[in-house]
Amino acid sequence: MTDLIDKLHWRYATKKFNPSKVVPDDKIERIIEAVRLTATSSGLQPFELLLVTNPALRAQIKPVAWDQQQVVDCSHLLVFAAWDDITADRVNAVYDQITAERGQNDGLDAYRQRLLGIVAERGQEANYEAAARQAYIGLGSALIAAAFEGVDATPMEGFDPAAVDAILGLKERHLRSVLIVPLGYRDEEGDWLLNMKKVRRPRNEFVTEMR
Amino acid sequence: MTDLIDKLHWRYATKKFNPSKVVPDDKIERIIEAVRLTATSSGLQPFELLLVTNPALRAQIKPVAWDQQQVVDCSHLLVFAAWDDITADRVNAVYDQITAERGQNDGLDAYRQRLLGIVAERGQEANYEAAARQAYIGLGSALIAAAFEGVDATPMEGFDPAAVDAILGLKERHLRSVLIVPLGYRDEEGDWLLNMKKVRRPRNEFVTEMR
Repeated sequence: MTDLIDKLHWRYATKKFNPSKVVPDDKIERIIEAVRLTATSSGLQPFELLLVTNPALRAQIKPVAWDQQQVVDCSHLLVFAAWDDITADRVNAVYDQITAERGQNDGLDAYRQRLLGIVAERGQEANYEAAARQAYIGLGSALIAAAFEGVDATPMEGFDPAAVDAILGLKERHLRSVLIVPLGYRDEEGDWLLNMKKVRRPRNEFVTEMR
Repeated sequence: MTDLIDKLHWRYATKKFNPSKVVPDDKIERIIEAVRLTATSSGLQPFELLLVTNPALRAQIKPVAWDQQQVVDCSHLLVFAAWDDITADRVNAVYDQITAERGQNDGLDAYRQRLLGIVAERGQEANYEAAARQAYIGLGSALIAAAFEGVDATPMEGFDPAAVDAILGLKERHLRSVLIVPLGYRDEEGDWLLNMKKVRRPRNEFVTEMR
């Protein structure tokens, strides 16, 4: 566990990547696997990942991502794209899979029906918002997994989601980009943030104990 | 890293806790520290944690949390409460602290001003929503940290936030509950979910590669 805390201290929002260093596939796969295994509300996993290495696509994304150089300098650009709605079809596909893999559905059908009722009543935009939140749990896993792999990462909300959706063809797939995360290796000489102190609110201002 | 993937396989949304087993303080502190160190947008950490052990408070929360028994059977109830707004005062407090701890503000003042403009324009509800999303990154860290500690956890969205806010006095503190997470030790005999297969969408349906 000290190990986990050490990894959280090691990581930082990398400002400059070394563009000539490529992250090996096995490391990328373990980062993806950590996201795939992440807990989500009702087990829906209501988002997908896009792994963008294509240089032309990344060159298009950069200007709609506050012109941040990491988008093109990184080794792999990971995009978290949430479902634009939590539809009955999507819920049913998940619960059909769970039922099939577990070989039984004790109580699961009742839960599915309840969930179908909730998402139908909540409506499209609130469903999207609920889906987007789940992607952030996955981000928490991705950042830790990357740190365990010695891979640097820069979580970014600073981009135009509609523009990124258009570049990656997400709208047609009923997905909306919510986070982009350049992955790669820090440029130790060129990164102004690298040696800056990591600042967090002190524990006593962050936590209230109610005994 | 295999270790991290193992931990993600080990964890599950615990349905029944052993009410007589208490998680030691040092484990709770490391779980909290992992959340405290978690990356958040612009470093704002726009949420707080409440660590509720008080039995009377938990008894009040249970009926407004779909009557889930874990709320009272767990060892510690962790509540993630997001800022109800990202105000100028809150942004300034964070950036004053960063500037003070780093002993300089190269470029940081310009970034602060830009951020102040964004949150002023975005408005209260959208700021709350942005803050709530950050809490979910922290949840990702908390679930992994708990697993490394051998501590079971049940992430829950299924509760009435306004009721929990009233019980915990959050509204007066300009906070809104977004997630509750019972922490403790599984009841190996009594938990129907424990031996169920963990089901996730296969990698090829979850990830699209754009080379």
